[in-house]
Amino acid sequence: LTARPGRSTTRIVRTRVLVFGASGYSGLELLRWLARHPRAEVAGASSERWAGRPVGGPIAGWPGGLHFEPHPALLERAVEGAIAFLATPAETSLSLAPALLSRGARVIDLSGAFRLRRAEAYPEWYGFEHPAPALLDQAAYGLPELFPEPGAPGAPAAPAAGGRLVANPGCYATAAILAIAPLLSAKLVDPAAPIVLDGKSGATGAGKKLEESMLFSEVAEAIRPYRVGKHQHTPEIEQALGLALGRPVALTFTAHLVPLRRGLVVSAYLRARAGLAGRGSGAPEIAEAYRAAYAGARFVRVRSEPPDPAGVAGTNICDVHAVLDPRTETLIAFGALDNLVKGAAGQAIQNMNRLLGLDPSTGLVAP
Amino acid sequence: LTARPGRSTTRIVRTRVLVFGASGYSGLELLRWLARHPRAEVAGASSERWAGRPVGGPIAGWPGGLHFEPHPALLERAVEGAIAFLATPAETSLSLAPALLSRGARVIDLSGAFRLRRAEAYPEWYGFEHPAPALLDQAAYGLPELFPEPGAPGAPAAPAAGGRLVANPGCYATAAILAIAPLLSAKLVDPAAPIVLDGKSGATGAGKKLEESMLFSEVAEAIRPYRVGKHQHTPEIEQALGLALGRPVALTFTAHLVPLRRGLVVSAYLRARAGLAGRGSGAPEIAEAYRAAYAGARFVRVRSEPPDPAGVAGTNICDVHAVLDPRTETLIAFGALDNLVKGAAGQAIQNMNRLLGLDPSTGLVAP
Amino acid sequence: LTARPGRSTTRIVRTRVLVFGASGYSGLELLRWLARHPRAEVAGASSERWAGRPVGGPIAGWPGGLHFEPHPALLERAVEGAIAFLATPAETSLSLAPALLSRGARVIDLSGAFRLRRAEAYPEWYGFEHPAPALLDQAAYGLPELFPEPGAPGAPAAPAAGGRLVANPGCYATAAILAIAPLLSAKLVDPAAPIVLDGKSGATGAGKKLEESMLFSEVAEAIRPYRVGKHQHTPEIEQALGLALGRPVALTFTAHLVPLRRGLVVSAYLRARAGLAGRGSGAPEIAEAYRAAYAGARFVRVRSEPPDPAGVAGTNICDVHAVLDPRTETLIAFGALDNLVKGAAGQAIQNMNRLLGLDPSTGLVAP
Amino acid sequence: LTARPGRSTTRIVRTRVLVFGASGYSGLELLRWLARHPRAEVAGASSERWAGRPVGGPIAGWPGGLHFEPHPALLERAVEGAIAFLATPAETSLSLAPALLSRGARVIDLSGAFRLRRAEAYPEWYGFEHPAPALLDQAAYGLPELFPEPGAPGAPAAPAAGGRLVANPGCYATAAILAIAPLLSAKLVDPAAPIVLDGKSGATGAGKKLEESMLFSEVAEAIRPYRVGKHQHTPEIEQALGLALGRPVALTFTAHLVPLRRGLVVSAYLRARAGLAGRGSGAPEIAEAYRAAYAGARFVRVRSEPPDPAGVAGTNICDVHAVLDPRTETLIAFGALDNLVKGAAGQAIQNMNRLLGLDPSTGLVAP
Repeated sequence: LTARPGRSTTRIVRTRVLVFGASGYSGLELLRWLARHPRAEVAGASSERWAGRPVGGPIAGWPGGLHFEPHPALLERAVEGAIAFLATPAETSLSLAPALLSRGARVIDLSGAFRLRRAEAYPEWYGFEHPAPALLDQAAYGLPELFPEPGAPGAPAAPAAGGRLVANPGCYATAAILAIAPLLSAKLVDPAAPIVLDGKSGATGAGKKLEESMLFSEVAEAIRPYRVGKHQHTPEIEQALGLALGRPVALTFTAHLVPLRRGLVVSAYLRARAGLAGRGSGAPEIAEAYRAAYAGARFVRVRSEPPDPAGVAGTNICDVHAVLDPRTETLIAFGALDNLVKGAAGQAIQNMNRLLGLDPSTGLVAP
Repeated sequence: LTARPGRSTTRIVRTRVLVFGASGYSGLELLRWLARHPRAEVAGASSERWAGRPVGGPIAGWPGGLHFEPHPALLERAVEGAIAFLATPAETSLSLAPALLSRGARVIDLSGAFRLRRAEAYPEWYGFEHPAPALLDQAAYGLPELFPEPGAPGAPAAPAAGGRLVANPGCYATAAILAIAPLLSAKLVDPAAPIVLDGKSGATGAGKKLEESMLFSEVAEAIRPYRVGKHQHTPEIEQALGLALGRPVALTFTAHLVPLRRGLVVSAYLRARAGLAGRGSGAPEIAEAYRAAYAGARFVRVRSEPPDPAGVAGTNICDVHAVLDPRTETLIAFGALDNLVKGAAGQAIQNMNRLLGLDPSTGLVAP
Repeated sequence: LTARPGRSTTRIVRTRVLVFGASGYSGLELLRWLARHPRAEVAGASSERWAGRPVGGPIAGWPGGLHFEPHPALLERAVEGAIAFLATPAETSLSLAPALLSRGARVIDLSGAFRLRRAEAYPEWYGFEHPAPALLDQAAYGLPELFPEPGAPGAPAAPAAGGRLVANPGCYATAAILAIAPLLSAKLVDPAAPIVLDGKSGATGAGKKLEESMLFSEVAEAIRPYRVGKHQHTPEIEQALGLALGRPVALTFTAHLVPLRRGLVVSAYLRARAGLAGRGSGAPEIAEAYRAAYAGARFVRVRSEPPDPAGVAGTNICDVHAVLDPRTETLIAFGALDNLVKGAAGQAIQNMNRLLGLDPSTGLVAP
Repeated sequence: LTARPGRSTTRIVRTRVLVFGASGYSGLELLRWLARHPRAEVAGASSERWAGRPVGGPIAGWPGGLHFEPHPALLERAVEGAIAFLATPAETSLSLAPALLSRGARVIDLSGAFRLRRAEAYPEWYGFEHPAPALLDQAAYGLPELFPEPGAPGAPAAPAAGGRLVANPGCYATAAILAIAPLLSAKLVDPAAPIVLDGKSGATGAGKKLEESMLFSEVAEAIRPYRVGKHQHTPEIEQALGLALGRPVALTFTAHLVPLRRGLVVSAYLRARAGLAGRGSGAPEIAEAYRAAYAGARFVRVRSEPPDPAGVAGTNICDVHAVLDPRTETLIAFGALDNLVKGAAGQAIQNMNRLLGLDPSTGLVAP
């Protein structure tokens, strides 16, 4: 731990944090937020591609002289008690996380490497055999609004103060779970019908991939469905919603790339339970379900209109809204967030705050 | 009818066409395509807002000295045998169409004023009592790929050579019906389950509305769900799909505005009929259903990948694709098109070609 | 003045601030930054259009229950010592400023109403006779990096701690003056040749105007020169550069709208003084001139490459760069900034910090 | 030469054309226009990257079964009398052009390989020694509106009917020369003062480069000056303007990338000749100069307002406009065009029409 003088006469203790994979969109966003976090001290940032360059190049206003370094060099500096954020591909996280844990650091992983409880699901959804199934049991699923307590048996759990490894949820998964879970918990939905999930996301959601299809002139007038029925967030969402419903959930999920930089919306279509349609499109049960779930939640807003991620851009807020289509007995639920904040870096810091026992909104309040 | 010398020694007869509402996005697009149509002669274009201005201002390269004029002035020039395109709001079309028909002109209406057979549906979906229900029986629903014959009893029909009034389909409706109808006709779908339709469209789809929410800085980073479960294309799609299925169809439809200029995708989620899931994600029945519907169709392409409207921008083509999600027994079907061409002006010209007995692709082939 | 408990045991005194014209792009940006300013307390926000609506609607995460109110209501609450930001059109500022000053408030005006010293220039550049020429002498021109001292005779001056009225510079003017003035002060430029200034700006720079030309579909593929040789920032820039050069400066300025939301670049072309071309494209005199001007400046970065506003988006930083084209003996200087931050709200807060005697970067450090 | 039945009973002779480098933005655009050219028959298209793929994949509606092939395979099919378009990098054009010419084909090169008359200029501006200086003398500079006659001695020349090699002008160069040359020819400009040229272009102007800086999320909110004072179009523009002025011209040119797909504007700043300023901002000499140059020109429009490339998108038209700033005695001239049409593919077809003795607008009229 490092310490430096705060604004008052008492010394504020700052935790040493390391950011691996800091040149990607999520990694850069982490650095931006951490720079103004009152209790974190960025002790290092790694990037294979940008090793040697100053952090203050891509991030205007970055205080001090930090330079990107290779992963191994940063790994060497992971001391007991430090917090390491992994904004790396799943394969890289799988090799970094055990090394960091063994050095006494705590790990918040932004990839999918530790999100699923069942190792057997990895080959189908991620394309690899999971090399460390034991870690899946230790990993807490870091969606604090819905999983506040250390995990019930067989269930993903939020990080407790003593947690060592946090799986930070996917961007689509965060929006989908926050929008849908309360409706399942409140038993507003026919539990036997599969859930349809249609997601739309800006280009930073795909990461900084050097592919022709991601060039400006290719994306600027495109609407591009991808991973139809095969998106890797599917099992993660099913896992969390299954906990909310109390039985397995079947979800079909299709993602679409749309031409903006940051922001996503998920639109979920659920079969309403018998009788609900008679309550009208604004059935009060819907608002009640959300209220029960999110009373006091700082980073989820229940909206009376369909949400637009433009309204929460640059914030750690997820907007949710649901309405009933009585004609077809369909519940339509929306979640909207900034994929780089509540969908990645912001939520990771929220998880860090929990690990450190801080107020959840520390360093995250930015209208 | 006017005539002028063609490229060969034979004289090509050109039909006199009038474009009402020519300053909107669909109206301007109509003018652009009609200018190079070998059998049409644009005899006038109306716009209340731009009356008096030369057409060659907004349309670079416009041949000749045409000026926009007010609707009533253009109406006066509608002679027997002329074709009038109405790119006007439904309310305006409702007053223009009868006047034009009574003068002996034929009418292709791009609004929703004549798309629904049941006058009773207008108050709910369009917000007005339909003033001319008799015209609804006469109007042909102009989706030539699926409704080639003059209407079966009780059904919308494509324009026959002798038709006088064509209801040009909505942009979302065109993509949705083309993507879904063959799957219903081929009995690949559980007929009892409601259909979920999720649409995403660029900003020209909303028309040229002077609203704060449509300013560049408001749209550029937005993804905006709208008319959730209440979009006026819903009954139009249900009507056409009901004909394909042979029984009433229930559809829940939600539209989303995304930040591009032209192009839309619809993503449809349908419950597969029992047993189909066992055929795998690429069940050959799907391709077979599309082949049966679109063999020989010039303007529908059956794709092996999910379509992107960028791939058909500026063309009259609708791309369709479907795949099965065996895990959830869901058929996922996509339609993508340029909302100003196949979704509006291009399809209107396709309908004109039918009225005139021309080859369907006359004036519409433009890679 | 209001006070409330800070994080430490000492009480932090917060100054009461009012934001007039808070629903425009600059006004909303002011609210966002003020909400996290440690020494400001937003006591009210006015908007004729949005009066009655909660501020937390457009600004996700806004703390507390503030509502927009009409200008007159907010004016009533301007107490002695308060700071009023005017993010209003020049005409509105001209009526609000005297009323606020007479109530004892201090005024930071973001319009052009008080930027020019010569009242005679207003009819030509702003289209109105200036109604309060006496206030022009009192107004300090708020570009702190270049005008740190209360005004020399006949010259615009930065706000002193005791100042009452600050004219916040225009967005283009800020970038242009910061990029060019040091080159003039260092005598690198032929003083007799007119300066060519070519600006490019995103759509928020034009304000939230409800005009067809500002709709998404009109801007998205446009590059639009405007106010060619007639932009109202011209005399403001000439006035400031004249002070730097010590003699009158002639500037021809053309602005261009380009399709982004926030950010601008100015590209300035200046005739190099005799002999400088021989020093090569990277003549060390250039870097030296900037170093002399901006050593220690927190919000101006001297770059070794041409700057891109994307690199300073969301920050109060202006990037500058200059290079010599020896072939044509032309100095090419660039300034890039976020038009809503360093070009408007951020600089206004920087000026507030000066009025309050705070560190210049208070509340403005946000990587 | 191939022939196929036209619309009339006479057979229309079509020239066999080949497109090298057909998978880039200019190459694809060439294919789109050639597909509807009444006198061209696309006999092949090459792309190293896309070899083997059907042309109908990227170009919806492409008639027939053409596939991309490697350059050498296409070269083999270049027969006597064929026309080869080179939409390849300059280095590739340098090796393809001699081989094609030796086979009897005619070559229209869209790169800079043959645009400069002086081989000595290549190392500085293009970074290579020119390997075939003799070809520079044979190449006609293909800007038909200004260079209608086969080259005067020592001057670039437009393609004559008998020409074998055409250097198609650069996109920026086309706009700049068309906007500026008439003002020089009419002696409205001080011949001793250097010309300032500031260009802004969309992302397709940079070609389909797989670089991180060209990803959607990097370009979408950027304004990026590049090749400051060093753009390779500089000597090409100086060469053409020198012919217009009758003496050497010095030009300083800076380009800027802005976030649109297609379209560019150049803004030129020229010192007015003595006395012109007294004529006022709309000095009639300006309109007269343009009229003298472009009376009868099909593809240059003289505008009364500053032009926006959105107004000519998808057309072969270049809009020009100029105005005088009397305060600074500066002439400000603008040229706007679609960089893929008049700036590349369209102009190349215009040059083909000249080689074939066709009407200049054959296949190019598309409002």
